[in-house]
Amino acid sequence: MPTNVYDPPALEPGTLRVTPLGGLGEIGRNMTVFEYGGKLLIVDCGVLFPEEHQPGVDLILPDFEPIKDRLDDIVAVVLTHGHEDHIGAVPYLLRLKRDIPVIGSGLTLALVEAKLKEHRIKPYTLTVTEGQRENVGPFDLEFVAVNHSIPDALAVGIRTPAGLVLATGDFKMDQLPLDGRLTDLRAFARLGEEGVDLFLVDSTNADVPGFTPLERAIGPVLDQVIAKAPRRVIVASFSSHVHRVQQVIDAAAENGRRVAFLGRSMVRNMTIAEELGYLKVPDGVLIDYKKAKDLPDDRIVYMSTGSQGEPMAVLSRMANLDHAIEPGPGDTVILASSLIPGNENAVYRVIDGLTKLGANVVHKGNAKVHVSGHAAAGELLYCYNILKPRNVLPVHGEYRHLIANAKLAQDTGIPAERTIIGENGTVVDLKDGHAEVVGQLDLGFVYVDGSTVGEITDADLKDRRILGEEGFISVIVVVDAATGRIITGPEIHARGFAEDDAVFDSVKPKIAAALAEAAQSGVRDTHALSQVVRRTIGRWVNQALRRRPMIVPLVIEA
Amino acid sequence: MPTNVYDPPALEPGTLRVTPLGGLGEIGRNMTVFEYGGKLLIVDCGVLFPEEHQPGVDLILPDFEPIKDRLDDIVAVVLTHGHEDHIGAVPYLLRLKRDIPVIGSGLTLALVEAKLKEHRIKPYTLTVTEGQRENVGPFDLEFVAVNHSIPDALAVGIRTPAGLVLATGDFKMDQLPLDGRLTDLRAFARLGEEGVDLFLVDSTNADVPGFTPLERAIGPVLDQVIAKAPRRVIVASFSSHVHRVQQVIDAAAENGRRVAFLGRSMVRNMTIAEELGYLKVPDGVLIDYKKAKDLPDDRIVYMSTGSQGEPMAVLSRMANLDHAIEPGPGDTVILASSLIPGNENAVYRVIDGLTKLGANVVHKGNAKVHVSGHAAAGELLYCYNILKPRNVLPVHGEYRHLIANAKLAQDTGIPAERTIIGENGTVVDLKDGHAEVVGQLDLGFVYVDGSTVGEITDADLKDRRILGEEGFISVIVVVDAATGRIITGPEIHARGFAEDDAVFDSVKPKIAAALAEAAQSGVRDTHALSQVVRRTIGRWVNQALRRRPMIVPLVIEA
Repeated sequence: MPTNVYDPPALEPGTLRVTPLGGLGEIGRNMTVFEYGGKLLIVDCGVLFPEEHQPGVDLILPDFEPIKDRLDDIVAVVLTHGHEDHIGAVPYLLRLKRDIPVIGSGLTLALVEAKLKEHRIKPYTLTVTEGQRENVGPFDLEFVAVNHSIPDALAVGIRTPAGLVLATGDFKMDQLPLDGRLTDLRAFARLGEEGVDLFLVDSTNADVPGFTPLERAIGPVLDQVIAKAPRRVIVASFSSHVHRVQQVIDAAAENGRRVAFLGRSMVRNMTIAEELGYLKVPDGVLIDYKKAKDLPDDRIVYMSTGSQGEPMAVLSRMANLDHAIEPGPGDTVILASSLIPGNENAVYRVIDGLTKLGANVVHKGNAKVHVSGHAAAGELLYCYNILKPRNVLPVHGEYRHLIANAKLAQDTGIPAERTIIGENGTVVDLKDGHAEVVGQLDLGFVYVDGSTVGEITDADLKDRRILGEEGFISVIVVVDAATGRIITGPEIHARGFAEDDAVFDSVKPKIAAALAEAAQSGVRDTHALSQVVRRTIGRWVNQALRRRPMIVPLVIEA
Repeated sequence: MPTNVYDPPALEPGTLRVTPLGGLGEIGRNMTVFEYGGKLLIVDCGVLFPEEHQPGVDLILPDFEPIKDRLDDIVAVVLTHGHEDHIGAVPYLLRLKRDIPVIGSGLTLALVEAKLKEHRIKPYTLTVTEGQRENVGPFDLEFVAVNHSIPDALAVGIRTPAGLVLATGDFKMDQLPLDGRLTDLRAFARLGEEGVDLFLVDSTNADVPGFTPLERAIGPVLDQVIAKAPRRVIVASFSSHVHRVQQVIDAAAENGRRVAFLGRSMVRNMTIAEELGYLKVPDGVLIDYKKAKDLPDDRIVYMSTGSQGEPMAVLSRMANLDHAIEPGPGDTVILASSLIPGNENAVYRVIDGLTKLGANVVHKGNAKVHVSGHAAAGELLYCYNILKPRNVLPVHGEYRHLIANAKLAQDTGIPAERTIIGENGTVVDLKDGHAEVVGQLDLGFVYVDGSTVGEITDADLKDRRILGEEGFISVIVVVDAATGRIITGPEIHARGFAEDDAVFDSVKPKIAAALAEAAQSGVRDTHALSQVVRRTIGRWVNQALRRRPMIVPLVIEA
């Protein structure tokens, strides 16, 4: 939550206002609003995945509050690439207004359209490509190729009379990318010479020294592991990582194996990627997984989801023998993926389960089967030196990443006061080459749970944490409205608390006695009587058992 | 849970029976039972810390079931070292029988005695030292020095007529240990020449290639960071890591700073370590933390707990400004510790919080401020080659670690059939140099929650997970016993489900209608009526909201 909330002044003519709604202080739900001349441009609209202190939540959206009353002013949503943390909240934005135009590269739009289809929304889209310029309202957009862990990622230059902004989206600077599509440093240089007034830059790996290794370094490792594998090979990775999948396909083909996709999102995304030409599959290599079973074990590679130990994904189900494909001795499983913080225990459980079944498990910990998709410190220094931006707003990172990125900018000579450490809702105004924080909005988390959006609050999550840690005890007493005497009860029910309800036998008379005493002194109000019940059982459970379950007293009149 | 449970045969004369009750398939609650001639020897008795799928649990104990009826046969508990995963369950064992003798080194016993004091137990103890031999019942014990991340760790050799067993406890082979106390490879060699029939060996780092770096490599890094620190320095580490604390004290003294201990366990353990001579503090270096505030900022190092992001420990409270010491710009925080899997998000939250307050945070990710306490693969190979054991039982590890350790043994020439992969409750009989699995006990998790031990079951934890993910809805209806007609209700209360109870307005008439229908068709039984309520609201919540909270229907007769 923001530390110091204050309203920005009215936006002055000739000024560009930049307000990140998500992605600052967190990895996820990236979304930034640009305002000029009464019009809004949105760059990215992603989701954040919940952490363990947000139990039961499916997704977290950016807080749309600042734009909710200004939907008609939105000229477009630009999507820099097709990852969930950049496109996942688009359906929820378009639910508010269906005809907001969506701009992005071919693959990005294909992925967001597939997602919108599930929400029964058909969007207005504009496909753009690197080098292209488009005027959208008062915004003159220029798209620049960047390299990332998904193809067809774009940085976006935004020109208004207030100045030139460059937003990188997610990027790294692999100098030998698989598809030859480099982060376009010539364009960065040209924009730098023109003068970048504000640079919004990916901070994910700003605290990682050096350079992200080449994606193509993984190919030979995959090749070697697959060549040596005596039986089936199962590779798990991110379902949008087209280049990683390309390398698996190439290594499989090299070793005379066919490839079957497993997992709904893997099948869907790779079908899209192949149709659009991002994934190149040699003839006869792909095979439906149902037919793959008829192949000899040493002729097949399964390419699956579940590299993060997600309980419902293919790999976890395999490890639990809850999938048609049951790994066994001689099988090789490769987790060609990162280990996202918070997922460690789940992933290690899957690795242990697979090992127990006899499989040989190859992962980041014991082989070079993953590289990051984000620029490390060394690459960011190149960027700063080529661009020499006037002002820097590190985005896409937890607080320590933003700080590390700002320090890199300062190392290249950008003054500390020109590097802005913001949070979600920080309002930055740009005019005449000068960027300044002018406000801090009070934004929250918007939780998606089932089909409800924003109904679950932080108070509900606090209740869930208590319930999840301690369970609850409910005490029901039916009392006579006139006399306050107990008609039925106390009945005590507990869940997540103890196996045997007999544990409550000793406290029931205490509750009855406390209620009788209250009734005698004239208390009739059921709420007040409920509090008597709460205090009596609460004190008992704390002292006798040293536990603090949720206590739900219900005194009902009859 | 064990996959294939079967009873072992009656133990034959001249045979040693070895049964690990904990520590196999997990890192924690290490405990092994050795039986010979009707007598039992226990080695270690530790706790396991719960994972996220065991919410609200304080500790997990080994399942004492196999020894519960044989307490009088236990001749002693040998503790290899003073870490919680080796001594933490001793109070719970001694609660069953207070006079079981406890054997260990000086530091180990001091730590377990401090713990037992909190449980108001004064144990019978025997202090032993490396090289010592002791006969305990039919067991001829020999203690061997090993090096670990706590001083005074011991391996134990166990001789019976059935053969010689060596259990390493936790160990590594730092060749330049701070206290000069090496893992005694000369003793290992001598035992190897005598002939080790069964080797129980630490597997924690068996899947880490190479060698664990020297502990003393950390000193210069600490020295450098502290030398450069402009203001206060706060170091967090494990409260039992005497050598790490020693290096912090040395680096502080070198830089003219004084040291204050923070956190109950840090103060307690370091007081013990200093009294017993394991921690060497130069005169005038230690200072009470209350007095430390009066020192200039650049003259103090705080040595604190909380390196794993534990919410109630000092470092987390500092990050939340919930501690007398409030970190700020210019302060340096060093996390001189590992990052235990599962704690990542908590630790990163603390790092972000401290960074946000302006502190410079140094941790394993950006400086060499931690080394492991366990032997890596290269060290284990030395062990196998020096000992040449006849049979190997890898212990102290998750499944993949046990497998990796067994493979290392095999690489040194030990036949695969002589390397036993066990689980908790695997019964191994040793006779005439031959070790064999003869049974598999069905052991469970024993959960400590508050002051209750073993009352929380896996079913309760499942309830907690549902409650924690989804919350609950309780529906109370009071009906007339004779007619089944509703007197009061349905009253609906929900927690962790939605902010506004108005969401239930539409379902209340449905519940009333369903109950009326049931009553009309003659249903009077409150349990059956409860099921009617459950079905009605359950269907509604699943279909209308796509959620699956716990539903607690309560139909009460009045």
